Amino acid sequence: MKTYIDFLRRELEVRLDEATLFDVDCPLRLGAAIRYSLLGSGKRLRPLFVIFATEMCGGNRDSAMPAACAVEMIHAYSLIHDDLPAMDNDDLRRGRPTCHKQFDEATAILAGDALIPFAFEMLSKLSPDVVGRCSLELARAAGASALVGGQMDDIEKEKDIDTKQQEPAIKLLERIHQRKTGALIRVSLRLGGIIAGASDEWIAGLDNFGQKFGLAFQITDDLLDVLGNEETVGKRLRKDAAMDKWTYPALLGIEESKSEALRNINEAIAELSIFDNSIAKEILTNLTRNLIGREK
Amino acid sequence: MKTYIDFLRRELEVRLDEATLFDVDCPLRLGAAIRYSLLGSGKRLRPLFVIFATEMCGGNRDSAMPAACAVEMIHAYSLIHDDLPAMDNDDLRRGRPTCHKQFDEATAILAGDALIPFAFEMLSKLSPDVVGRCSLELARAAGASALVGGQMDDIEKEKDIDTKQQEPAIKLLERIHQRKTGALIRVSLRLGGIIAGASDEWIAGLDNFGQKFGLAFQITDDLLDVLGNEETVGKRLRKDAAMDKWTYPALLGIEESKSEALRNINEAIAELSIFDNSIAKEILTNLTRNLIGREK
Repeated sequence: MKTYIDFLRRELEVRLDEATLFDVDCPLRLGAAIRYSLLGSGKRLRPLFVIFATEMCGGNRDSAMPAACAVEMIHAYSLIHDDLPAMDNDDLRRGRPTCHKQFDEATAILAGDALIPFAFEMLSKLSPDVVGRCSLELARAAGASALVGGQMDDIEKEKDIDTKQQEPAIKLLERIHQRKTGALIRVSLRLGGIIAGASDEWIAGLDNFGQKFGLAFQITDDLLDVLGNEETVGKRLRKDAAMDKWTYPALLGIEESKSEALRNINEAIAELSIFDNSIAKEILTNLTRNLIGREK
Repeated sequence: MKTYIDFLRRELEVRLDEATLFDVDCPLRLGAAIRYSLLGSGKRLRPLFVIFATEMCGGNRDSAMPAACAVEMIHAYSLIHDDLPAMDNDDLRRGRPTCHKQFDEATAILAGDALIPFAFEMLSKLSPDVVGRCSLELARAAGASALVGGQMDDIEKEKDIDTKQQEPAIKLLERIHQRKTGALIRVSLRLGGIIAGASDEWIAGLDNFGQKFGLAFQITDDLLDVLGNEETVGKRLRKDAAMDKWTYPALLGIEESKSEALRNINEAIAELSIFDNSIAKEILTNLTRNLIGREK
């Protein structure tokens, strides 16, 4: 099972590598920044979700590959831009300098900018009967009311609440994560279902799984910032607390955060019960269960 | 004819306005920045090209509207990001503060980021038989080997040439503009042709027209920077010379730039000869001819 994930990660790496062998019209430095951010590392969680969802719904892995590459491109762009000085101002990502540190700020902005249409170029290679729907779903997940909106609220949230007290902090935090990380995870699973021609019921099941997985993923990510080892994780830790950032541990405490993560993990796994047993389902279940003990 | 352009501009404004009535998941400040940059001003040249190309090829205006909105969204994003401090660092655009001046840098980056997938969301509303091709074409035009690559070379060009002297300055300048402004103008015309179900010959004609129009547009834009009135143009002028920037007037002189513009204008108009006479063709011809006397 570990072997199958490794195989898929290598397969994805090859596809992403081939897709980014740019022609002469792409400036060398820009191409290098895109490849630096997209290749060679990363858990490839979102593209794996596309593939496993496709397989769970009886679809063919190869048919899902363009969408798998597409969601990874959107993910890579979002990390590059989130790390920018004007945003989270991070200098370390996946154990290496962030894109704007390795290159420069303009190059990092442009590398991110180029990855977004690139994702839709990938989607255009899907079977013609699903291109429109997949484009629409990915566009919304990457848009102002999802990925980008979540990031915006994330960098604005302390300001907003201090002055307006519109809603309880934990509710806003959840709304932020549902858009900032949840939307892309959910759409990865949905795209897999759509490509496999799954029923609405199955797509809803995948969506629910994604929503709960996404929350558990974020809570355990926050816990990692408090409890993790910087070298293993590959990015600066203890930054949230130092910056007085809102996180689940900060708002709920460590123990309650752990049980909140566990609750979402169990609910996520329960959502998979509508699917027949398969290797893909087994892997998804294990990936979810292992969130609680994750080290990176 | 002027009236028809005005009518179309109003129609586009209404469509763009309706498309950006965001739901509660879009943060207010982000939505405001997107609307600030997208609505209320601009020549709407690219969406008009989509519409005129559709009409010249016998297609229906309404069928082209989603693509018209899409290219304007890509254009608006590219202006927001080009103006950023890490890029051209401009504070005035269309007579108003640039997005990062009116809001802030993070908001401007995110507003641009959100506009890119938004363009593909628009395209997904096209007739299913053209969605895939239109997405692919727009994605390439907005990608690393076109729009973004052109901008990258534009901010890098002086550096590059000083050290390497790879190619004559005027050749590189042309290659930059063909990607930075030309690619989106060309794809606007191509999308119109594709939507109307035009033949390859017609699409090639539209493409050639777009290429020559784009160059003429850029040369006259550079001339405007030297000869124009800041208030009429709505952005800072004389900046190119002050920054010792490469422009056509700087490299060729004013008179030769004017004849180069005129040559491209005449060649662009000649490309339209394969199309039957129509109001759309007449307007395109006049828009092109008027480039030489443009005041903004």
